[in-house]
Amino acid sequence: MKAYQITSHDGLDQALQRVDLPDPQPGPGEVIVGIRANSLNYRDTLVTMGGYPRNDTLPVIPLSDGAGEVAAVGEGVTRWKAGDRVAANFMRDWVAGPIDETALRSSLGGGVDGMLAPYVVLPEHALVRIPDHLSFEQAATLPCAAVTAWNALTAADVKPGQTVLLLGTGGVSIFGLQFAKLFGATAVVTSSRDEKLDKARGLGADHTINYADRPEWHEAVLEATGGVGADVVLEVGGNGTLERSLQAVRPGGAIALIGLLAQADPPSILPALLNAQRVLGIYVGSVAMFNTMNRAIAARRLEPVVDRVFPYDDAVEAYRYFASQKHVGKVVIAH
Amino acid sequence: MKAYQITSHDGLDQALQRVDLPDPQPGPGEVIVGIRANSLNYRDTLVTMGGYPRNDTLPVIPLSDGAGEVAAVGEGVTRWKAGDRVAANFMRDWVAGPIDETALRSSLGGGVDGMLAPYVVLPEHALVRIPDHLSFEQAATLPCAAVTAWNALTAADVKPGQTVLLLGTGGVSIFGLQFAKLFGATAVVTSSRDEKLDKARGLGADHTINYADRPEWHEAVLEATGGVGADVVLEVGGNGTLERSLQAVRPGGAIALIGLLAQADPPSILPALLNAQRVLGIYVGSVAMFNTMNRAIAARRLEPVVDRVFPYDDAVEAYRYFASQKHVGKVVIAH
Amino acid sequence: MKAYQITSHDGLDQALQRVDLPDPQPGPGEVIVGIRANSLNYRDTLVTMGGYPRNDTLPVIPLSDGAGEVAAVGEGVTRWKAGDRVAANFMRDWVAGPIDETALRSSLGGGVDGMLAPYVVLPEHALVRIPDHLSFEQAATLPCAAVTAWNALTAADVKPGQTVLLLGTGGVSIFGLQFAKLFGATAVVTSSRDEKLDKARGLGADHTINYADRPEWHEAVLEATGGVGADVVLEVGGNGTLERSLQAVRPGGAIALIGLLAQADPPSILPALLNAQRVLGIYVGSVAMFNTMNRAIAARRLEPVVDRVFPYDDAVEAYRYFASQKHVGKVVIAH
Amino acid sequence: MKAYQITSHDGLDQALQRVDLPDPQPGPGEVIVGIRANSLNYRDTLVTMGGYPRNDTLPVIPLSDGAGEVAAVGEGVTRWKAGDRVAANFMRDWVAGPIDETALRSSLGGGVDGMLAPYVVLPEHALVRIPDHLSFEQAATLPCAAVTAWNALTAADVKPGQTVLLLGTGGVSIFGLQFAKLFGATAVVTSSRDEKLDKARGLGADHTINYADRPEWHEAVLEATGGVGADVVLEVGGNGTLERSLQAVRPGGAIALIGLLAQADPPSILPALLNAQRVLGIYVGSVAMFNTMNRAIAARRLEPVVDRVFPYDDAVEAYRYFASQKHVGKVVIAH
Repeated sequence: MKAYQITSHDGLDQALQRVDLPDPQPGPGEVIVGIRANSLNYRDTLVTMGGYPRNDTLPVIPLSDGAGEVAAVGEGVTRWKAGDRVAANFMRDWVAGPIDETALRSSLGGGVDGMLAPYVVLPEHALVRIPDHLSFEQAATLPCAAVTAWNALTAADVKPGQTVLLLGTGGVSIFGLQFAKLFGATAVVTSSRDEKLDKARGLGADHTINYADRPEWHEAVLEATGGVGADVVLEVGGNGTLERSLQAVRPGGAIALIGLLAQADPPSILPALLNAQRVLGIYVGSVAMFNTMNRAIAARRLEPVVDRVFPYDDAVEAYRYFASQKHVGKVVIAH
Repeated sequence: MKAYQITSHDGLDQALQRVDLPDPQPGPGEVIVGIRANSLNYRDTLVTMGGYPRNDTLPVIPLSDGAGEVAAVGEGVTRWKAGDRVAANFMRDWVAGPIDETALRSSLGGGVDGMLAPYVVLPEHALVRIPDHLSFEQAATLPCAAVTAWNALTAADVKPGQTVLLLGTGGVSIFGLQFAKLFGATAVVTSSRDEKLDKARGLGADHTINYADRPEWHEAVLEATGGVGADVVLEVGGNGTLERSLQAVRPGGAIALIGLLAQADPPSILPALLNAQRVLGIYVGSVAMFNTMNRAIAARRLEPVVDRVFPYDDAVEAYRYFASQKHVGKVVIAH
Repeated sequence: MKAYQITSHDGLDQALQRVDLPDPQPGPGEVIVGIRANSLNYRDTLVTMGGYPRNDTLPVIPLSDGAGEVAAVGEGVTRWKAGDRVAANFMRDWVAGPIDETALRSSLGGGVDGMLAPYVVLPEHALVRIPDHLSFEQAATLPCAAVTAWNALTAADVKPGQTVLLLGTGGVSIFGLQFAKLFGATAVVTSSRDEKLDKARGLGADHTINYADRPEWHEAVLEATGGVGADVVLEVGGNGTLERSLQAVRPGGAIALIGLLAQADPPSILPALLNAQRVLGIYVGSVAMFNTMNRAIAARRLEPVVDRVFPYDDAVEAYRYFASQKHVGKVVIAH
Repeated sequence: MKAYQITSHDGLDQALQRVDLPDPQPGPGEVIVGIRANSLNYRDTLVTMGGYPRNDTLPVIPLSDGAGEVAAVGEGVTRWKAGDRVAANFMRDWVAGPIDETALRSSLGGGVDGMLAPYVVLPEHALVRIPDHLSFEQAATLPCAAVTAWNALTAADVKPGQTVLLLGTGGVSIFGLQFAKLFGATAVVTSSRDEKLDKARGLGADHTINYADRPEWHEAVLEATGGVGADVVLEVGGNGTLERSLQAVRPGGAIALIGLLAQADPPSILPALLNAQRVLGIYVGSVAMFNTMNRAIAARRLEPVVDRVFPYDDAVEAYRYFASQKHVGKVVIAH
């Protein structure tokens, strides 16, 4: 089969190669999935540059995100049959319960082979059924960004009536916005572009803040919350946002730490102590979380926001478009 | 009455003054407590130097920690009567539920008048009954250090069979050790002094680590936990400990952030993200937490560890002894 | 003032009397509220008949539910001032944390004087601020039915994507329906009247079941949930419903027990054991729960469903209309 | 191999037969365990009489409880190797998360073949590693009684300082006592025999009540708790105990419902509503709970209480001794 591989850590153009690989065969307990769509995450661009802990296996088939149909199952597989519509969990071996080192070392498209191929082989425990009302393109957006946002909101224990702050309009933030509304929360969204904020309002954002116009955006969050601060922020890690996030969240509130630029001069965590805040390191989630999320998505027929779809042969173009940060929601590759 | 006041932020010797103040009278809903003992916390020395957010009222009667007997009650007081044995909550106005700005601004001996006086006046909601089996000296150790350790272990949701890491043998860490055993956990204690570690073992520590002998003490924690890491650390904020704490705690584990030196070069919080850890800013606790803790202390007849008792007239000496860090457990002042 | 009192336990017509009482005066820590509207609950009719544990004080001003404006405050009151729009908590003395005997004995309009009067006196801790967008008529519906439904859904820990079963269209069930949608859940409603089911669908019900047409209504719940059963039922206690509720809820699910007819032949609880279900006795809620609920109601501008409004002079008529069970949502009395 | 089978539902003497069965062979993902010890539970005697929902497969190898060594593994098994010391989970297919119908139908020795045989075959997900410090006889006591008690205490969210009530000195109650102490709780134990209460005190019981001397034993529980009531009771289902349990538990407390005689005249659940209590149906637990419990047992080197050990050939005698209710703790069969 014609797959993609990351063969070095020299950045996208050198690192990502088209390769011929043998079609995978299922061992006992394994499943072959015919991939119909993939999606991209910021982490996938980092992986091409190396230095990402536990995500530097070489060579490796890239991408955590993919959805498709079961093509074949190995001996002893009881949960899946050919034709089932599935996606795989970001950490292949995090089934349920607390995260551990084994789970951390099993991230698709970094620690182990990922999803940017016509066929992939996975243990049966790594798969989830995708909601009926979603296309493969839509379902391919879920494994990394949606599960991360879901885990963040549930780890922060968001309750109806609380306020959730979303930074920007990337994949995690847009799912965070949709889920915040599903949880009965009030949503505040920041962006430097008014047209992106318009889209956020269309998705249910209660307050929007253009941080280009309002560099002291944490003050705008305080204003929007009667001076109290947001209950929860999904801190996706823009440059220098953590300092302001800590000020935008109320005493006792939660900062879900999702991304963080490796800064030469990291911000002090001292304010979190002085305000009794929680900083929750969120690293995607388990198969159990994915299933719980899918149930909610199906019940409310929530529609993931697909920004643009590239054909499989243009995967490198998709990476480049993604890196340009013009998107709202997810960038998808269709096979 | 002869009380103490912090009258400036010039450090202990200038800041702490003996003063004559009128005896307090109870207004409606207020209680007069005759103080019988106090105890000291690291925060109390910081307050004398100024710069501690929300704790820089001047002049202010110092110390959060005190225990004594109700001397008189004002109109409308229903919960207390003369002779009741009580202590006050660190944050006078944090009764229950989530912390807020009002609570944060009401810390005894910093934001509002504290307990280093023969008599203090407090709203009835600020008091807790002290366990019957404790002397006033013992009960005076509870408000800051014990409630902090209790809040940390409950916020981190410590369960039987988990491992809790305590840094050093100061007040919070020793209560953390005693409570960790009460919660059915395994306790690991660090110190640079073998005699302090001996005392910790006497209090139930399962593993002890001399970090003078073993500067890479986080590795010793990993060894003591089968390579996995502790489930929870009470990070009381020694110089440069946070980096190692993040490595000593397992993926998905919790760092209860209790103290933190204001470092010129703060450590990055990035590792917490990469290991899906929680960093929980712990700022003492509510009256409700104090009562719940007291119930457990009473049920198990837990004895606070009093290192040394100074007479009221030698309060300044008590501060100096405390600053020398020779103690294990709590330094107390008796009236 | 012209108030109402329950003066015996001989049923509505004998029990409920119009009486002249002196205008209440505020003691220290107390607040006088000028009542503008009340609402009725099934419990209020039970109280007139006696035999309701901890609710048999005589004479007693009836009704737990009322909303109005602060008219005057006593000495030492800091949280309220004249003109504040407030309601009181069903259990006057359940402020926060676990329920206790003191709380249970303080139910308005049963254990202690209630709200069916022009003016009432209450301790300042018993009051909550009502949401700005609600009229007094709407706000008067909240204390018993809405807080009960809120407590039930939070005690059962309802999550987005779960299914909540509501029995009938009384006050608790209609709030349960509105809150279930707010929590991101799927709602199933039963009734014997199609026009009531139509109203439920208008409020967001995802599935409706006419149990007159379908006496085996628990089977209809199983069909609506893919054979699994609802996650949670609000069991408001119709005759013989508990047996079916236990069958309509999935293994591991929750039965929030809100009302229960005193049956000569009570159903066995054994099925709950065999299906690992939780039966949660729900008895309204605390001031803290009321405030949290109000925050969510305000954030989403949720509108309570008022079925009909009676003038204060016709309070007895309001009771009779309520007992006829023609209503959907709440029956209100306006002053 | 020489195994036992339940071949009818005619009670122990007819139902339990010695049979020759072929040695089991491992399929993909399966493990063969050589059983070294078993233990008995009340449910095992019920199964011989039939009528136990989802536990009436015929013929069936009896007993949920067994411990031994892995003898062989099938293709694709990665977690286990020959020689590993293991036990199996009561519900073979309840790995983690909420219980479901599939889990409920997989109970060893009732729904599917159990452990009273020299060799058994199980899917790899059904096994747990047994603590190093336990003999096989001790480890064989864990799967049903210990996991049930653990699940009950964690479902009821027992906290240090709370009071747990244990009814009698059977397997679940004795584990409940040991775990209650591990959780930092105060333990109250009832029995009709003083020598059994002596043993309970030796295991840490803080209060004991002889209900033969004190038929109104719920009043003794109230006395032991300052009039408040226990926080949690493990209701193992003696005749008529539930009525008293509901009175022995505080308002807002929890009744963990573990066993319940099928009574002609079941008690009303109404008191649970009037006291805002939770009745939690506890049906053993998941593999995840079993592992968490084992970690705590290992950390604290807790020793299960073995009352008496019978040889494998005398399994029927073991059943009879068990039914006589002379035991304190567990009745074991050694191979």
